[in-house]
Amino acid sequence: MAMTLAALAERLGLPLAGSDREFTGLNTLEAASETEVSFLANPRYTHLLAGTRACAVILAREFAAQAPSATLVSANPYLDFARAAALFVRKQGEQTGLSPLACVHPTARLGEDCAVYPYVFIGPRARIGNRCTLFPGVYVGDDCVIGDDCVLYPHAVLMAGVEMGDRCILHSGSVLGTEGFGFTRAAGAVQKIPQIGAVVLGDGVDVGANTCIDRATLGATRVGRDTKIDNLVQLGHNVEVGEQCFLISQVGVAGSTRVGDRVTMAGQVGVAGHLRIGDDVTIGPQAGVPKDIPDGVSGSGTPFMERRTFMRNLVLQPKLADMHRRLQQLEKELSRLRESLGAGKDTP
Amino acid sequence: MAMTLAALAERLGLPLAGSDREFTGLNTLEAASETEVSFLANPRYTHLLAGTRACAVILAREFAAQAPSATLVSANPYLDFARAAALFVRKQGEQTGLSPLACVHPTARLGEDCAVYPYVFIGPRARIGNRCTLFPGVYVGDDCVIGDDCVLYPHAVLMAGVEMGDRCILHSGSVLGTEGFGFTRAAGAVQKIPQIGAVVLGDGVDVGANTCIDRATLGATRVGRDTKIDNLVQLGHNVEVGEQCFLISQVGVAGSTRVGDRVTMAGQVGVAGHLRIGDDVTIGPQAGVPKDIPDGVSGSGTPFMERRTFMRNLVLQPKLADMHRRLQQLEKELSRLRESLGAGKDTP
Amino acid sequence: MAMTLAALAERLGLPLAGSDREFTGLNTLEAASETEVSFLANPRYTHLLAGTRACAVILAREFAAQAPSATLVSANPYLDFARAAALFVRKQGEQTGLSPLACVHPTARLGEDCAVYPYVFIGPRARIGNRCTLFPGVYVGDDCVIGDDCVLYPHAVLMAGVEMGDRCILHSGSVLGTEGFGFTRAAGAVQKIPQIGAVVLGDGVDVGANTCIDRATLGATRVGRDTKIDNLVQLGHNVEVGEQCFLISQVGVAGSTRVGDRVTMAGQVGVAGHLRIGDDVTIGPQAGVPKDIPDGVSGSGTPFMERRTFMRNLVLQPKLADMHRRLQQLEKELSRLRESLGAGKDTP
Repeated sequence: MAMTLAALAERLGLPLAGSDREFTGLNTLEAASETEVSFLANPRYTHLLAGTRACAVILAREFAAQAPSATLVSANPYLDFARAAALFVRKQGEQTGLSPLACVHPTARLGEDCAVYPYVFIGPRARIGNRCTLFPGVYVGDDCVIGDDCVLYPHAVLMAGVEMGDRCILHSGSVLGTEGFGFTRAAGAVQKIPQIGAVVLGDGVDVGANTCIDRATLGATRVGRDTKIDNLVQLGHNVEVGEQCFLISQVGVAGSTRVGDRVTMAGQVGVAGHLRIGDDVTIGPQAGVPKDIPDGVSGSGTPFMERRTFMRNLVLQPKLADMHRRLQQLEKELSRLRESLGAGKDTP
Repeated sequence: MAMTLAALAERLGLPLAGSDREFTGLNTLEAASETEVSFLANPRYTHLLAGTRACAVILAREFAAQAPSATLVSANPYLDFARAAALFVRKQGEQTGLSPLACVHPTARLGEDCAVYPYVFIGPRARIGNRCTLFPGVYVGDDCVIGDDCVLYPHAVLMAGVEMGDRCILHSGSVLGTEGFGFTRAAGAVQKIPQIGAVVLGDGVDVGANTCIDRATLGATRVGRDTKIDNLVQLGHNVEVGEQCFLISQVGVAGSTRVGDRVTMAGQVGVAGHLRIGDDVTIGPQAGVPKDIPDGVSGSGTPFMERRTFMRNLVLQPKLADMHRRLQQLEKELSRLRESLGAGKDTP
Repeated sequence: MAMTLAALAERLGLPLAGSDREFTGLNTLEAASETEVSFLANPRYTHLLAGTRACAVILAREFAAQAPSATLVSANPYLDFARAAALFVRKQGEQTGLSPLACVHPTARLGEDCAVYPYVFIGPRARIGNRCTLFPGVYVGDDCVIGDDCVLYPHAVLMAGVEMGDRCILHSGSVLGTEGFGFTRAAGAVQKIPQIGAVVLGDGVDVGANTCIDRATLGATRVGRDTKIDNLVQLGHNVEVGEQCFLISQVGVAGSTRVGDRVTMAGQVGVAGHLRIGDDVTIGPQAGVPKDIPDGVSGSGTPFMERRTFMRNLVLQPKLADMHRRLQQLEKELSRLRESLGAGKDTP
């Protein structure tokens, strides 16, 4: 795809300074060729501006003079880059309508203008909205409900009874509604606790590749509107996640924990079950959360601590042996001091 | 589905007190409607009893008087709830027999009353028992052996030569028998160590969604009878897990480690290779296990410690900076004390 | 499969001492039967030699006299075992040519002697080299480029525009080119940062089961030649991994981090974004890496420390409570000492 800088400037509503030309895409300041547009959002990369070969750069007014190229001055270069990039998003696939190699149960209902690829299986009584795309290998179980404008990438799986809103994206291999892990050992045998609840996703939820969201024991496992979940994440049975949360890759949240709105969990965070994580909480990478977290707290560590405490303790982790040595030294010195002052002197 | 309270009482063998009526399902004390049955297993939720709208509650005799509804008095309310829930388990799918859109190799053998969905692939010489269900996208490789009454959910994969007993459940996207990770760097190149062993599951094993169990280098990777494995777990080559173990989500066990019977590993636990974990061991979330653990030990942490040691140390993690400050303070005070007593006094 | 010891000796170029016979496979010293060959690579298992039933053992000259069986003396028993094992690798499947149940877009190009199983989907303009095998459920998106001699196991997914070299292996359920996680919260809404870059794998790369490699925001996420990635690993957008690296199971590398050559990351390691990990770095299990690591460093821990520091600190983790107790004791003793010497004496 190619377009002119002038056309881009018009689309973004930004002033173009410098000569117009055709360009073919976007790239970083370092990697851009003469036919690509770049951007400067993080001031720490300003030094790369002078050397860029990009034919134009989206950037803040204060840096415009330093650009060797045409410029598109923006009040928010990162968001305007995102808007430009949206013009270059690669549409995946060409399927339209229902492939004859898909299986749709006679009792299932499919909305208008859906694209259903080969090897898709849609079970009894499932209802799918308008303008949805179901890539090869997608499985939609009995009684599932899918809103409008959803995209289900290859091999996404919805077990029976999963419900989701509009504009949801399920990435490849994601599994929604698998049985929650409910077992007890009793009387020498393993007893299974049936998992008869559901999974309910709000509008605009993204679920990453190979991420798993378990069905509830009773009631529903819930993910709120516009929450974005990365790859390889695990949400246990009856977890409830609020709106606009970001759960980064390999996070695990154990059963029945409730997570507020606008919560961010960095990679590999683990949260124990039956907790309450407040709104606007940020949890750093690999943190282990054994207790409730009130609204608005940022932190990290195992156990989870507020950010200031965490940072002060983190730098001391590598000094534990040193602290131990100093402790031994103090014990020795104090002992010698007491001896030199005469035995028994320090007893009351 | 609807049934009467009287019918439920009869099925569970519990006395019904209060008026009979039809109900449609089970739910928590808080969420239950007038047409749902609930239960009280954990005394800490007793305060919810007064406000429940459930038409009946399964509970212990001592709490029966507090229920505003009909009651089903039980010696073990949790297990009786589980038995009630089993009556409401949603059967997934309607497939019977062999779909004409499935591929079964002519040399493969399929037992009686199996349900094989479209897009299932069964390879040469595979043998599948009676009453098995294979959902869309299941792949059964050459020479695999599957027992009776197994359920393989969408896209479960058995690479060549995997064997499993009766009543196993493989959840969506689980992968059994992929090559173990066997590589060395030698003479400037990467040398692959072929993985020619097998994977063998006992009866009643559950494998979670997107969980991976690697094929052995030689011999077999083994999972014992009635062991339950959650989602996104990794078992390396030649791992041997005993019977009735619970491996919670995102656990990783490295190659050749032997795990005893009735072991529980909480979420995100990592166990190093070539270890021996005893029977009846419980390992807390995110623990890192670098050494053998004897029978019967409960603990957590990195490195793994017995529970009592772990708990005492955990609360001190956030106090490391405080300890460091106090250590510095002591050093200063001791130094001043020695000075005030005259230099050299504390040397022998 | 059966072959004679003499034939094996010839294939490996090793001298056979002892009587020739037919054997059927390889196994460990402990588990081998009379019709199997074994090997001794690790001197710590030498004591198992006397009791083995193996009909022949591959081993170093110094141990040959202790073998009760025929011997194949080798300068590198582990590598010669690997070469022997390669003769016994189970070929998976029998597919040849293009299954009529596969979907190949008319504009896609397929090389010679490829095996394409049922339920494979190959999208527009994709180009696949010679002698590739695509197992059931493989999805190859638009414009993907796959080299020669690649194997894509069941349900491996390449989203649009992914490129890979020759001799790559994608294990079951691996997902390449899913959208990177690019979101910000702005003005009360979640803004998506489009991910319009690619994924590029060099020659000889292995990608483990259910592993995810995200597409770049701009440019490409890259994995270098002969790098081997285990199961359930996550590589974020714009990560660049060098050559001959080993990334063990459940590792996560956050966006834009550059990893050098011959780097080993053990299981469950987490690496933050925008870092530079040098060549020949080794990172121990569960380590959390918040900062750059220079070339050649081995270490572990959270935060990552050099190996010597890590080992010294690790053993003290369980002693934190003990250190705290000793610290309190010192404070008390020092206080009493000061008191016994008269108040105020230690103030300047």
